[in-house]
Amino acid sequence: MSDIAAGDLGSWFAPDELAQIRRRLPILYIDAVPVRVDADGAIESIALLLRTPREGGLQRALVSGRVMYHERIRDALARHLDKDLGPMALPKLPVSLVPFTVAEYFPTPGITPYHDPRQHAVSMAYIVPIDGDCQPQQDTLDITWLTPEEALNPGIQAEMVDGHGALLRSALSHTGRIV
Amino acid sequence: MSDIAAGDLGSWFAPDELAQIRRRLPILYIDAVPVRVDADGAIESIALLLRTPREGGLQRALVSGRVMYHERIRDALARHLDKDLGPMALPKLPVSLVPFTVAEYFPTPGITPYHDPRQHAVSMAYIVPIDGDCQPQQDTLDITWLTPEEALNPGIQAEMVDGHGALLRSALSHTGRIV
Amino acid sequence: MSDIAAGDLGSWFAPDELAQIRRRLPILYIDAVPVRVDADGAIESIALLLRTPREGGLQRALVSGRVMYHERIRDALARHLDKDLGPMALPKLPVSLVPFTVAEYFPTPGITPYHDPRQHAVSMAYIVPIDGDCQPQQDTLDITWLTPEEALNPGIQAEMVDGHGALLRSALSHTGRIV
Amino acid sequence: MSDIAAGDLGSWFAPDELAQIRRRLPILYIDAVPVRVDADGAIESIALLLRTPREGGLQRALVSGRVMYHERIRDALARHLDKDLGPMALPKLPVSLVPFTVAEYFPTPGITPYHDPRQHAVSMAYIVPIDGDCQPQQDTLDITWLTPEEALNPGIQAEMVDGHGALLRSALSHTGRIV
Repeated sequence: MSDIAAGDLGSWFAPDELAQIRRRLPILYIDAVPVRVDADGAIESIALLLRTPREGGLQRALVSGRVMYHERIRDALARHLDKDLGPMALPKLPVSLVPFTVAEYFPTPGITPYHDPRQHAVSMAYIVPIDGDCQPQQDTLDITWLTPEEALNPGIQAEMVDGHGALLRSALSHTGRIV
Repeated sequence: MSDIAAGDLGSWFAPDELAQIRRRLPILYIDAVPVRVDADGAIESIALLLRTPREGGLQRALVSGRVMYHERIRDALARHLDKDLGPMALPKLPVSLVPFTVAEYFPTPGITPYHDPRQHAVSMAYIVPIDGDCQPQQDTLDITWLTPEEALNPGIQAEMVDGHGALLRSALSHTGRIV
Repeated sequence: MSDIAAGDLGSWFAPDELAQIRRRLPILYIDAVPVRVDADGAIESIALLLRTPREGGLQRALVSGRVMYHERIRDALARHLDKDLGPMALPKLPVSLVPFTVAEYFPTPGITPYHDPRQHAVSMAYIVPIDGDCQPQQDTLDITWLTPEEALNPGIQAEMVDGHGALLRSALSHTGRIV
Repeated sequence: MSDIAAGDLGSWFAPDELAQIRRRLPILYIDAVPVRVDADGAIESIALLLRTPREGGLQRALVSGRVMYHERIRDALARHLDKDLGPMALPKLPVSLVPFTVAEYFPTPGITPYHDPRQHAVSMAYIVPIDGDCQPQQDTLDITWLTPEEALNPGIQAEMVDGHGALLRSALSHTGRIV
């Protein structure tokens, strides 16, 4: 959930104003698990975003971001997929907006499998098949496509941020691909 | 979505502060459709809250309310059911928090079936069986139990606020009770 | 659910054997609602199959058919979409096999909104975006693409077979397109 | 899926007739994960049925069984819960029959996480809160209530039959209890 750069909210809130609101209201997010599927719709691979956070090390993340004022969830999904995977990704957005899970990120760890030190965020999570080509954007170093088995490797899971590992496992379980 | 009285947010935001935020961020809500079910889990009746708004007339509503900072969705559901149906309602909260629908309330009518002139609210909606006794609370005049057929009566639907009629139809469709 | 021609089951059961089994076991089906979606995944139109049944008149149907022995649901979906819409339809099968509804077709009318005089069928229903071109196959005269509003027209609904009208309304409600 | 004793199908099929049909048609099942929930609907414990199969050893199972001809899924759920947990279990059947997962049991292992050497069964799976007292019935030695953590213990998982371990993990993931 490292998507909120100055540019994302700056047009709406001054930084200290935003910081204040984040301590007082749950913030609405979407999470997207980008996947490639075979001709029958079964998941073949998952895209993980590779980043190097300011504090050093490597982090892997799913697509994630805030829903803006007066923005439809569908538009927020399209915007964040475009922002993180590039304009040629050709994501296939879901026909229904019922999420496969609702991830509650608390600033306090341990309440749910999800954690975000900056804020209380509630995220509706979707699995999104990708038909086109993905290019790393902005602060993303690389986009790695992993099979479900590879993505569940403990080394990879340990690099995933803020409960995105739990989110990925939940997505794979939901599709029956791995349980 | 008329649940936000002074007391609900007053401890967190000054009224003008709240009014400002509501014009700049989507606000996270839960909606609950309170139902009585038979021994096999099929819906027998639905509870509608009857209110008289300041501007006159009659309004019928489902249970609805904001999720607070650092509050789990599960706790927000329990709190609003308690607030609207009273402490003896004995609601059976869902084991999964995947909503049957996500209702996007926009201040501009016509974008979705849902509308809230005061704000952009995104509400996760649940069907909640009620085992106990309901008592009207606060500004609610009465709680009426209607069969699905009665609740879909055009006269009743016309009295429902802010797209709650659409939400009820969606709930009945989801359960296969009426489609 | 008029898909079971001699060829579909003939290789497995003699006709009288099949008739017998259908009076003694629920038969597993899939239903598919073929849709065109816009770039954001919202439904633009729905495909209805137009047929002239032996007893005269016109009938409109969704894609529907039996799951065979040792066949995955995913493969049954692909097979029936191919059989009814042709090999160029390019359906996008769902990543999760959780259906949006389970339609229980009883030989006795009135138990559920679904009815099949020939058998007790239980059908898992999916919404399937179609990317390619559809061609009427076999006994289908035409494939008509209708907007959600057109498809809900009472004249069209009256031509739909066996509860497929209810299934279509349930699908549109599930996607929030019309409730 | 060891529920089909002579009595269950004997009134409908002669044993060899049943054996024949099972090699030619997918058989429709329901699976139920019996749980105790706290006042907020969160899972506290799961009931596993302990059995000693003819071939020796111990087996743990969820509630599972066939849907009969002309039987609603809702009635099949109630019947199998009653049969396996006894008449005082007071199960709270789901308001919607959309399953949390569809388990495809193939006689050939490895196609899905689910396996049934006797047949191709397709099972709609539900999580069912239990309010009353459970008593082991028929060939069940004991009913054990385990916390989610205990139920995921590898020793327990190894004793679970036919993919019921996978089904349980899928249920816990769906509820967000453990992912």
